[in-house]
Amino acid sequence: MFSTKTYTDRRNELKKNFKSGILLFLGNNESPMNYAGNTYHFRQDSTFLYYWGINQPNLAAVINIDKDQEIIFGDDRSIDDIIWMGFDESISEKSKSVGVEKVKPFSKLESYLKKYAKKGKVHYLPQYRQDNIFLLEQLIGIKHNKINNNVSEKLIKAVIKQRSIKTNEEIKEIEQALDVSYEMNTVAMKIIRPGLFEREVYGVVEGIALSKGNGVSFPIIFSVNGEILHNHSRENIMKEGQIAVLDSGAETMMGYASDITRTIPVNGKFSQKQKDIYNIVLNAQLKAIELMKPDVKFKEIHIEAAKVITQGLADLGIMKGNINDAVNKGAHALFFPHGLGHMMGLDVHDMENLGENYVGYSKITKRSDQFGLAYLRLAKKLEPGFVATVEPGCYFIPALIKKWKEEKKHLEFINYDKVEEYLNFGGVRIEDNVLVTQTSHKVLGKPIPKSVEEVEQTCDS
Amino acid sequence: MFSTKTYTDRRNELKKNFKSGILLFLGNNESPMNYAGNTYHFRQDSTFLYYWGINQPNLAAVINIDKDQEIIFGDDRSIDDIIWMGFDESISEKSKSVGVEKVKPFSKLESYLKKYAKKGKVHYLPQYRQDNIFLLEQLIGIKHNKINNNVSEKLIKAVIKQRSIKTNEEIKEIEQALDVSYEMNTVAMKIIRPGLFEREVYGVVEGIALSKGNGVSFPIIFSVNGEILHNHSRENIMKEGQIAVLDSGAETMMGYASDITRTIPVNGKFSQKQKDIYNIVLNAQLKAIELMKPDVKFKEIHIEAAKVITQGLADLGIMKGNINDAVNKGAHALFFPHGLGHMMGLDVHDMENLGENYVGYSKITKRSDQFGLAYLRLAKKLEPGFVATVEPGCYFIPALIKKWKEEKKHLEFINYDKVEEYLNFGGVRIEDNVLVTQTSHKVLGKPIPKSVEEVEQTCDS
Repeated sequence: MFSTKTYTDRRNELKKNFKSGILLFLGNNESPMNYAGNTYHFRQDSTFLYYWGINQPNLAAVINIDKDQEIIFGDDRSIDDIIWMGFDESISEKSKSVGVEKVKPFSKLESYLKKYAKKGKVHYLPQYRQDNIFLLEQLIGIKHNKINNNVSEKLIKAVIKQRSIKTNEEIKEIEQALDVSYEMNTVAMKIIRPGLFEREVYGVVEGIALSKGNGVSFPIIFSVNGEILHNHSRENIMKEGQIAVLDSGAETMMGYASDITRTIPVNGKFSQKQKDIYNIVLNAQLKAIELMKPDVKFKEIHIEAAKVITQGLADLGIMKGNINDAVNKGAHALFFPHGLGHMMGLDVHDMENLGENYVGYSKITKRSDQFGLAYLRLAKKLEPGFVATVEPGCYFIPALIKKWKEEKKHLEFINYDKVEEYLNFGGVRIEDNVLVTQTSHKVLGKPIPKSVEEVEQTCDS
Repeated sequence: MFSTKTYTDRRNELKKNFKSGILLFLGNNESPMNYAGNTYHFRQDSTFLYYWGINQPNLAAVINIDKDQEIIFGDDRSIDDIIWMGFDESISEKSKSVGVEKVKPFSKLESYLKKYAKKGKVHYLPQYRQDNIFLLEQLIGIKHNKINNNVSEKLIKAVIKQRSIKTNEEIKEIEQALDVSYEMNTVAMKIIRPGLFEREVYGVVEGIALSKGNGVSFPIIFSVNGEILHNHSRENIMKEGQIAVLDSGAETMMGYASDITRTIPVNGKFSQKQKDIYNIVLNAQLKAIELMKPDVKFKEIHIEAAKVITQGLADLGIMKGNINDAVNKGAHALFFPHGLGHMMGLDVHDMENLGENYVGYSKITKRSDQFGLAYLRLAKKLEPGFVATVEPGCYFIPALIKKWKEEKKHLEFINYDKVEEYLNFGGVRIEDNVLVTQTSHKVLGKPIPKSVEEVEQTCDS
């Protein structure tokens, strides 16, 4: 937990945006796996963690602007709970440590909110868990399927404004997650070899995240089918000559994320063909990182990265024609169909639950509907304190290539005959986490092997 | 997946219980962690797996008894899905492999059920996930908070009857999970040492479950505070002279569980005091296993195990008086406050979502309300094909000891002065998975080191 002052400061800053009403924050509950008593690991809501810091289920908190009151609603453990789950500090004690003096039983929340709810004065955030949607229906009397239509845009914007700017103590947390990522990635490089199941590496990597912190910040992607962007199968036996994409992140005990991708040759050495594509992606990533600074639109950096990839593919004869035109028309998206990166913090896609368009776009920067660019999660002007991932990739996706070829899409920019020489290539993605500083940027964490030589050396060690 | 015949046989067996109506089975969906797109690992509903075998989200299935029709409702992947998640067999192909010819888009489920729902002819099982409760409200028009009041007792009982009896192919799956458990437990014994965080061992153990199968079958308990029965904190630094309880299980790719507990000395050697308690628990476990056979009530075996523990504690001067009386009155529950075991199969507490009283009790065997015994999950007569855990324990729970002592509870059976010499002891639990055979029982899996000598030898290796 951070200091008491951190949490009171955060709430005081938030309160400045409101003249009246109730700000309601629901914590997360246990989430059932295959029956109510067998739950996934507990994950607190990130906004709850940000303002209230307490990492346990069955809590809610309110800021009553009218009365200038802060209350945490929750229940202490019973003797039965203590037998099964151990002794724990009281909600009162925990609340004090985050600067909240007033605590009430959870059952009092409904009556507390009643008169405010009737007047429509309860501000709440978008809900992504069905149990909390049910709870809100009960608490404020809006039907469950309308709950997310009645969220407070004012509260969303105020929270995003605050959470987007990472303080030094938050950066330290992210770098702690990156220390774990360093180990996850270098160990993967050391143990990867032909004949192993993907899941044999994946298990070790996730085990490190569990041993050194609070587990993974998102489900690990580890596959020789790197062209499948969010591949959650790990059932392939890895073969000589393949490359595997490892996209993984750790979470600190306080909930902060890292998110790193490396592409690793299964036998420890890249082929020339693999090096060619790898270095195109690496150049795009380095170029993009170089461009990160305040007041630059992340969308422009995405476009620049796309140009590096397009130029590289043109040099190999895979693409052709005018590079700028190809990128403007979205031809590169056959190979680089996703966005360059996203905000990162307490969530690996930071604040995605609050709405990606609020987090990554603005009045002047609207989402494109072009294939590829439409997936860009962050587009708006960068500000000091933003932490974003920079993660270009280059993939050969057989189903997509087939579709575009049949549709004769972008024939002026794509040499489909040449592309077909790469149908079994897979994909390459390289990702780091970058802080926007006052005048420039900083790649966070201890450098994780990234150049062809560094990766090969680590595989060999 | 099992053979097509396995699934058709299972459904045909089930159908025999019904003359008309619709049997509705909802599969599970992705479960959000900190935002909708960041999900926990997918876990299919076990009953869905049992009858329909397909391990992916967003499916439902019906058996229409009136029309003798079986239908799986689900949607194939779009091109966008394929880019992000990879190519996958169609629902049609997957359905064929489990013997189902008829497939419809998920969106057709509501209209299909409509006329049956109106007549109250839709049989469904208790729901433990809120998204499926919402869905059912929409599908059959019963309000969400009434969904679990309108479940089909007939369907519950028919499913439990079938799933309770494990076939040879299911036993093989459980033994496969136990192979992973063997490695999880022996590796833990090898790496445990003073100075490590609990989570450093826990991460490695969970990593093995992820590497060798489908991860863990429930959240691992690994703690030097073994007296906390479901302790999910792993933040202690382990010290010389402590013992740690490791209660863990693996899940096979098809969803079958193992569930093993071992108690391990942190420095590799039990003290005499630890050996004394350990051997009491071991004797209780061996005695209980010996008694496992058809037609014996598991509750009686629980009582016999409790007697062994009570006798052992009396020999140490911790308990006193008539052993049978002590157990009948529940005095032993200060030290052994939980049940001896539970059914195991596709769920680690098998079918707990269907109702523990249906699974573990019967018309003639009712749940006790005595402290300790009330927690017993399985009490009824054993049948050939049951797989149950046998897991007695002995704990010194400071909060409970304090409470009972203050209440002067069972003074005739408990020497509180002697008990207080054990306040920092922690706890011991030993657990195996046992199949009830036609005439006797079989401890499943390759034997995992269990005697004091075996555990110490493995720690030392």
